Amino acid sequence: MKKDKISSAVIRRLPRYYRHLDDLYRAGTIRISSGALAQSMGLTASQIRQDLSCFGGFGQQGYGYNVERLRGEVAEILGMNRGHTVLILGAGNLGRALIENFPFRANGFRLVAAFDVNPDLVDTKLGGVPVYHVDGLDTFVREHRVSVAVLTVPGSVAVATARRLSKLGGDGIWNFTNVELPEQEMPDVKVENVHFADSLLTLSYMISEE
Amino acid sequence: MKKDKISSAVIRRLPRYYRHLDDLYRAGTIRISSGALAQSMGLTASQIRQDLSCFGGFGQQGYGYNVERLRGEVAEILGMNRGHTVLILGAGNLGRALIENFPFRANGFRLVAAFDVNPDLVDTKLGGVPVYHVDGLDTFVREHRVSVAVLTVPGSVAVATARRLSKLGGDGIWNFTNVELPEQEMPDVKVENVHFADSLLTLSYMISEE
Repeated sequence: MKKDKISSAVIRRLPRYYRHLDDLYRAGTIRISSGALAQSMGLTASQIRQDLSCFGGFGQQGYGYNVERLRGEVAEILGMNRGHTVLILGAGNLGRALIENFPFRANGFRLVAAFDVNPDLVDTKLGGVPVYHVDGLDTFVREHRVSVAVLTVPGSVAVATARRLSKLGGDGIWNFTNVELPEQEMPDVKVENVHFADSLLTLSYMISEE
Repeated sequence: MKKDKISSAVIRRLPRYYRHLDDLYRAGTIRISSGALAQSMGLTASQIRQDLSCFGGFGQQGYGYNVERLRGEVAEILGMNRGHTVLILGAGNLGRALIENFPFRANGFRLVAAFDVNPDLVDTKLGGVPVYHVDGLDTFVREHRVSVAVLTVPGSVAVATARRLSKLGGDGIWNFTNVELPEQEMPDVKVENVHFADSLLTLSYMISEE
């Protein structure tokens, strides 16, 4: 599948497509028109046709989209079938919330380990996932293929931890620390930042309108 | 300040503007050109000028932007000076992570209370914030002005809790449950969803390219 030059706006919408298609699939929906899919997603039908045409367009005139097939295609594009692995760095409240509640597997990731420095946590398991001391990180990463590291360490050690991960050759960092990572120093690592504040401020804007 | 018909894409970028301007302000930067601001944000200078012109445009030809003033204007537009209040529904791992680590105040929100059903938590304090039994929610909301409720309850009670909040007349729900809320039933409540999966799948896409 050719994926060059897909705009980042389209890429940002793809997970939402997957989410809606997965809901439809689980609800037993066989096919859906671009109009109906658009309505359920708050987009226009032409937007949907345009987005999906970036990937070759899977719809058929007068039929709409086959839900299972389109869901599978979007999953493929998103790399959900690549056997990605993930580890969690920092098993504080947020790290633990992700370990215990986030459906990594349903999103194509296998959570293989967590790392922390807290002696109460090291060498225990959280939600079935082994927690190791962060001193063992380098060895672990060298011995296992790790696609993504979830950064839920304290902000004070975020940059140093990211640099360490970059040297170890990880593919991606899912950054929850709210600290800007030195991305220009780590050109081989893709960084995805989760900024809770951006989301709350958008809500703040919405409730402040009059 | 006139704010009608600002596109949601611009609104989504405003918190990022605030974040970058706040960093510049704290670093002591007095003024910045649209070009330099663009570079630090990964946007183009013309995009920045266009975005900010939606709000009347605060730049001056040949001078650029006064950082403190622009930061203040963006904060004002985002409603950061409205005295918003927030409460947290569900003091599990994620709720606790937000209570203990999220800078509500720096984002214009005062965190007034948390609610849970866990007897080990009820009538204690977490990070200085009182935790009440969820049975007391209705009374609390009637007696206090609450702008936003953070929904960090288990997914199984997400919809029921949102309906209850809507009846109580809250302005906004910051929804971390990954459950779609019945927004059409609660036209007076603004809902902002935080979908961790969308973020991870974007990263999945990025590391799956070749």
